[in-house]
Parts: sequence; structure tokens; C-alpha cells
Amino acid sequence: MKILKTIQEMKEVSAELKSSGLSIGFVPTMGSLHEGHLSLVRSSRNQADRTVVSIFVNPTQFGPGEDFKRYPRDLKKDLEILEKEEVDFVFVPEVEEMYPDGYKTYVEVHELQDKLCGRSRPGHFRGVCTIVLKLSHIIKPDLSFFGQKDAQQAIILKRMVKDLDMDGEIEVLPIVRNEEGIALSSRNEYLSPEERKAALCLSKSLKKARSMIEKGERDTEKIIRGMKEIIAEEPLARIDYVEIVGMEELDPLPWIEEEALIVLAVFVGKARLIDNTIGRIKE
Amino acid sequence: MKILKTIQEMKEVSAELKSSGLSIGFVPTMGSLHEGHLSLVRSSRNQADRTVVSIFVNPTQFGPGEDFKRYPRDLKKDLEILEKEEVDFVFVPEVEEMYPDGYKTYVEVHELQDKLCGRSRPGHFRGVCTIVLKLSHIIKPDLSFFGQKDAQQAIILKRMVKDLDMDGEIEVLPIVRNEEGIALSSRNEYLSPEERKAALCLSKSLKKARSMIEKGERDTEKIIRGMKEIIAEEPLARIDYVEIVGMEELDPLPWIEEEALIVLAVFVGKARLIDNTIGRIKE
Repeated sequence: MKILKTIQEMKEVSAELKSSGLSIGFVPTMGSLHEGHLSLVRSSRNQADRTVVSIFVNPTQFGPGEDFKRYPRDLKKDLEILEKEEVDFVFVPEVEEMYPDGYKTYVEVHELQDKLCGRSRPGHFRGVCTIVLKLSHIIKPDLSFFGQKDAQQAIILKRMVKDLDMDGEIEVLPIVRNEEGIALSSRNEYLSPEERKAALCLSKSLKKARSMIEKGERDTEKIIRGMKEIIAEEPLARIDYVEIVGMEELDPLPWIEEEALIVLAVFVGKARLIDNTIGRIKE
Repeated sequence: MKILKTIQEMKEVSAELKSSGLSIGFVPTMGSLHEGHLSLVRSSRNQADRTVVSIFVNPTQFGPGEDFKRYPRDLKKDLEILEKEEVDFVFVPEVEEMYPDGYKTYVEVHELQDKLCGRSRPGHFRGVCTIVLKLSHIIKPDLSFFGQKDAQQAIILKRMVKDLDMDGEIEVLPIVRNEEGIALSSRNEYLSPEERKAALCLSKSLKKARSMIEKGERDTEKIIRGMKEIIAEEPLARIDYVEIVGMEELDPLPWIEEEALIVLAVFVGKARLIDNTIGRIKE
């Protein structure tokens, strides 16, 4: 496994791979790796000739009051994990390498960036799009892997790739959950044992939504009310949003007709947790 | 000369050229070609193995009240000119090909985009950056050619290429002028014979600035006043801005120390004309 720290080195590696006709799979991460990331890594290893993982806690996707400084970092452990997964290349640039003095350029996916998480995290998706575009220029992946846990991110990035005529495809892999049902997230590390129990209310509320839909409920207002009731029972949890939206434009649906993204964000202690499921009507 | 209309066709051509090890020179244009464009084309023909010219009147770089609809278009004549110049490929997409329904993604170079022309043309440089990024993804040029007439555009695009870690370099070529000294521009077609005479005040005011600097003047306020006097003598001309700014950040300079961009925009009839020169102090 080769560790690369500069854009120049990384560009040389990807140019070499390209000219050897080898396909590149890319897994962008902010480190603090868990089984969710590893499902992406394994999928890349299966599908691409060579796998590049980036570890970069991207400052531009954190708002002013957010957790950039205390975001969990453990590079040594992350590298050990990736070594075991037989990853080929790890790209670990410093912040100054990616955003040198005088940096000024940002990519925005209008409308989509302002909905759901975008409302409480202004600028977040601009930061995500900008870093993913930069990394794509540096690494030139044939396939990039993202998790369905960040559903809005995946939808926005697919839109960006299409709109900007980028090469390479995006593959979105299912949410990985722990035994209790909590969606894996690096931010779960912020939770005390008590808060960890409280965090269960997210996946429970999604379960409730699915069960209501299975029983024939189509009215999203009623489903959302049912979900909010579950979360309200948990004193340590505070809702940011609970929504049922269309899969492309992320606009609220009054009624589930075929497919809908059921998505929520909830504060538990210091953590802002997100989770989602896709509701499908089987005719 | 091969004419390509779809992104798919163009991408296939550039992939073929790349895999044959041929370098690609790229000249983006909005058509209505003049000798300014042809200096870029000839430079590309000299330096790159193959030259691609795009002709696309890009709607996203025009503001609501601007001249998108009446911008001069003559594709037949443009293609004849490019054929004579022995251009290899011309990319001529329709608006719907570049911006299909649901298009949402834009690139911005903060700060720089709001100065000079950005003040009277909000959104203009966002449109320019977005289309140049898209075209770069489609054409994958080793070298792209732009004119110094659009000085701010060149500075912003260089910043974008650097910030986004894009491959390929930008080359900026000198302003081409007619016998009288007017900078060539497709928008000169808007001018009546009388307005054409009035348009001379732009290059005359730059000449005045250079002569003041040669005589030892360093105070930009005085130089700008001298320039404005020249333009004020012309009743058909109305100043948008006259500025002397630094070459990287485009901030007004109180004093010319080494190098400065002397730049102006002036309305003459229906046309908004721009011109510039670089003031250099020879020690």
C-alpha cells in the first residue's frame, strides 16, 4: 500500500495507472473508518483494477459552528485498516495542499444544496462538491463509491457528475448498521452510552414508516407524524427534520406513489445524526 | 475538418486523440469569429498536435437584460473561416445539449468574480467558469487559448484551473486591434459608423495612461482622471468603470509600483466595450 501526500504525486500515480490501462476505483473518506467505509472499499476492490482511498477531513464542508476541529482523527489506525483491506493507494493531503493561500473556487449544485441538511448546514454541500471535484481531477477514477447513509450527498454528486460532463461513474452502496440498527457514522463516537441508546430512535422511526407503508398508508403527513412520535419519546433526541421527498429533486411529497426518500436528521447530545430509507410501493 | 454536435461524439474524439498520444489545443469561442480568435487558433495549430475550436453562445454568461438573443451568429461563415485555418475539429453543441432540463451545477471563483466587469454583470463569470469547466471535461485539452482582451476572464480561469487541480494549461494571447487601434470584439458589430469612431476613446485613454506612466506618473488616481478626461470628450461614450488594479487579486492600486492592469469598460450605443493594457515600470 502506497501513501501519497501531494497532488503532484497522486496525479503521477493516476496517470501511470491510466496509461497502463488499469481502471481506478476511488473511495473518498474523512477517515475514522468503520464498516460502512469498508463496504465501499471492498466493492471498489471487486470492481476496479486499483483502489485509491483518500483520507481528508475537508474544512470547507463544515460550517463555522460545526465540529471540524473535534472531528475524530486517527490516521495510524485508519492506515492499518486499509492495509488489511489490501488497498493500493491512500491519498492523505494536508489542508494547505488542497486549499493553499488565495484559494477561491467552489462548485454548487443549486436548489438541491439548499434542501434537507442544506437548510441547517449552509455551505456544506458546496464544500462536498468542491472537494469531490478536486479529488476527481487529481485521481481520475473510473468508479467512485459513496454510502447511501448520506443520501442527499449521493444525489447531489450524481447531479454534479452529470451536469459537469465528468467521466467516471458514481456507485452508491447500502447503509451499514450495527446490531442494534444504528447507521454507522464516525460521529457516533461523540455519543455517550446513554446517548447511543437514544440514537436508536432514528432507525426505529424509519422502521415505523416502512411498517405504515406496508400496511397501506400513503399519506406522508401521517407517516411523518408517526415517525416524529417515536422520536418525541426519546428525551435526549431533538429533531432537525423529518421529511419524505422525491428521489431526484428532493421536494416534499404529499403522497407516496412509487418511490420516496424517507429521511431525517436528529440531534443527540453533541452529535447531529442522519438516517434514511427508500420507501417503495409494491403493486 | 470534422464538425461535432454532441458531447458523446466529442468525448470519443478526445479519448481517441489522447490514446494516440496526440496533444489537444482548444480555442473556446462564441463564434462571430475575427482576427482575435484566429490568433488563438493559429497559436494552437503551432503548439498542439490537434486543434479543437468550440462555437457556443453560452446563455449562462449573459445576464437577464443582456444581449444573448441578438449576439451575432453566423455559423456558416465561421465554419468557412475555420476550414481555411485548417482546424481539425469544431464542437458546435446546441444549448439543450450543454444545459439539459434539470441542469443545476455552477462553478464560482469568489471575490474575483465580483470585481470590475462582475459588478455590472453579476453571474457573468460564473457562467464563463461553468462552461469552460464543462468544455474541459469534454475536450480534455493540453492547452487552452484565451485572449488578453478579456483580462479578468483570463485571470479568473487561471485561478479556477489552479484551484480545481485541472490538467492542461491556459495560454493568454495579446489583444488584436484594427488599424485605428480598436480592440477586436464580436460586439463591435453593434456599432454604427459614428459609434465606431466614438469607440476609439477606449484605446486612446489607454494610450494616455501609458504615456503618463512613461513620463513618471505613479499616482493611479491622476492616471485614471487623465483617462476619464479622454472618454468625457466623446459624447456617445458612457463610462462603466476605469480602474488600475493588481494583476492577481484585481484590487485597486493607489500607486503603480511594478505591474498593474489598466482596465476599462465603456458603453457606446448598444455595445458595452472593454479594453485594457498592462502598465509596467521599467527601472
